[in-house]
Amino acid sequence: MSHILVELMSRLTPLSKNEKADIENSFPIETYKKGSFLMREGQIARNAYYVISGCIREYELVDGEEKTTAFYTEGRSAINFNSLSQQVPSKVYFICSEPTTVAILNTDKEKELYLKHPRFETFCRIGMEQMIGAKHSQLNEFITMKPRDRYEKLQQDRPDLLNRVPQYQIASYLGIKPETLSRIRKRTLKN
Amino acid sequence: MSHILVELMSRLTPLSKNEKADIENSFPIETYKKGSFLMREGQIARNAYYVISGCIREYELVDGEEKTTAFYTEGRSAINFNSLSQQVPSKVYFICSEPTTVAILNTDKEKELYLKHPRFETFCRIGMEQMIGAKHSQLNEFITMKPRDRYEKLQQDRPDLLNRVPQYQIASYLGIKPETLSRIRKRTLKN
Repeated sequence: MSHILVELMSRLTPLSKNEKADIENSFPIETYKKGSFLMREGQIARNAYYVISGCIREYELVDGEEKTTAFYTEGRSAINFNSLSQQVPSKVYFICSEPTTVAILNTDKEKELYLKHPRFETFCRIGMEQMIGAKHSQLNEFITMKPRDRYEKLQQDRPDLLNRVPQYQIASYLGIKPETLSRIRKRTLKN
Repeated sequence: MSHILVELMSRLTPLSKNEKADIENSFPIETYKKGSFLMREGQIARNAYYVISGCIREYELVDGEEKTTAFYTEGRSAINFNSLSQQVPSKVYFICSEPTTVAILNTDKEKELYLKHPRFETFCRIGMEQMIGAKHSQLNEFITMKPRDRYEKLQQDRPDLLNRVPQYQIASYLGIKPETLSRIRKRTLKN
């Protein structure tokens, strides 16, 4: 099977042998055990992670409590742009909540490829547009929707997630208490 | 005075006369009256707006009520990437809450320039990285912070905003009721 990034990029534009080889050599694929950290608070990001299989959970530590801020599953990328692009310490942790296989996107190698193959920059820019769109939508949902509606939207958009991660992490991600999530789930099941 | 985008891009890399002229000709600068709509729900986005002066408020209509989801002031860009990149109808409105001067970034002209001047794509990609970083931080703040802390952070990060827009819009943007914001403000003033 070909490299996942070659596969994705080939859907947009046919790639030369040279381009394919450079992408494959630049972005190794690794599998991490459940519980592995790919990023910790205070570290300066050098890598982004495209998830091929598994799940990376993003969280912040607030007064000793883990607040879950994202779940990156198949086809999503765990990227801390604040730390990567400004080279400031990360506020978040990335932890594999399942055995997880990723393509590792090192920022220096990415920049080399941008110069060598400008089409790779176009590919990344298009990916970024989708990522901003996704974060923008999620932020707006947080502002405009009630917790119950946010839960139902999550059920619709990412039904797999609800069976893959513990309920208290889902509650944290929705910005509500576990008890509130239990109440919402009971009411949703009744209807 | 030179074109704002030429100015910003020149900070990253010296530009040729040709590049400067193309940027100036592609992205006209316009001033809109207070109350002008730059985007309405249901429209398909063709333009993004870099704010030179003034303020664009983003909101969604939920059961007839305006829920404010963003304020784009000087140096920020009002962009609906979901609608722009997937060409789907917008869920949000962009309204000028002050007389507002913007550089209009038309998506077709942008794509033309990417092909003609690859450095322009690099410039936009870097801008996008900062934008994702900003939306990511804001989303995480919504998940991890209490309304009072979010208000104090807004006071710190964007003190001008609190004097430029009505309190009920600030409350909406913080995802709280106007009464709650009043209480928070009184307590903050006391301390």
